[in-house]
Amino acid sequence: MAKTILHAGRFLNLVSADGWEFVERVGVSGVVAILAVTDDERIVLVEQFRPPIGKRIIEIPAGLAGDVAGEEHEALELAARRELEEETGYSADGMREMETGPSSAGLTSELITFFEATGLEKTGDGGGDGSESIIVHEVLPSELRTWLADQVDNGAMIDPKIHSSLCMAGRTLAR
Amino acid sequence: MAKTILHAGRFLNLVSADGWEFVERVGVSGVVAILAVTDDERIVLVEQFRPPIGKRIIEIPAGLAGDVAGEEHEALELAARRELEEETGYSADGMREMETGPSSAGLTSELITFFEATGLEKTGDGGGDGSESIIVHEVLPSELRTWLADQVDNGAMIDPKIHSSLCMAGRTLAR
Repeated sequence: MAKTILHAGRFLNLVSADGWEFVERVGVSGVVAILAVTDDERIVLVEQFRPPIGKRIIEIPAGLAGDVAGEEHEALELAARRELEEETGYSADGMREMETGPSSAGLTSELITFFEATGLEKTGDGGGDGSESIIVHEVLPSELRTWLADQVDNGAMIDPKIHSSLCMAGRTLAR
Repeated sequence: MAKTILHAGRFLNLVSADGWEFVERVGVSGVVAILAVTDDERIVLVEQFRPPIGKRIIEIPAGLAGDVAGEEHEALELAARRELEEETGYSADGMREMETGPSSAGLTSELITFFEATGLEKTGDGGGDGSESIIVHEVLPSELRTWLADQVDNGAMIDPKIHSSLCMAGRTLAR
């Protein structure tokens, strides 16, 4: 498939191939998202303002692999451990790779690899790297549906990766 | 937030705002994805080659709202009914809106609105519009995890919107 770069950005390229337009990330080896579950079965969520959406988004911890100079080939599991610790302050004993799938298969080549983190131990403050401002939440699955609805009522939006990671892990939301 | 268009494509714009780069869709009023469940409880899935990924992707039916000339303000529920029928040949009695969320909040302003379709009746052949080549599958939830794993073994990839829609609807995958 012949690919033409319509615009090469710092972080994203807009490309065209066989009449399709899509965007690809530049200088990353993958994207990871982590369903982290504490020993008392709480789901660890992060909240941050996302400029493309213009709202606070409630998400599972996630981030880019291989985007740090000198670590271009960072393994996905290492990236998952690093992102979880940076964003939430939790180190994980277990980090199980679940599935890899497209975030929007008609619009981007981006693939997300989902992990399930267990055996969590608080080893830092979290909150993200210097450029990020992240609030950490811990919510029981039995309260999650109601809690998420409250967040929407307060102007936030919910990332569907919360739901997909729960389903991949064989968990569900109370109705 | 001041926005600069780095490149205006036919279908996508690459934009920059406050140092963030992201992509936005042009000329659509929304994006819909539909968890369609037959009366005998089978999940209706579609399979198609996706150029940005370079693979066959197994997905729930989905598509753009308002991208047809003269229908720029197409309601999301109407778009969901149209896309379901175009792609799968099913008309739905019930079309329940579930949640709206970002497909990749750091990379695009795209928001997906999820619906649950029930009371399905086969009224057409499906397969997509003229530009699409879509295979329809119907899978029991109890067999879905194994079926999806088989598809991955055969070189396809799984769209996590399958999982997120199941979880939103209060359904789960057998482990």
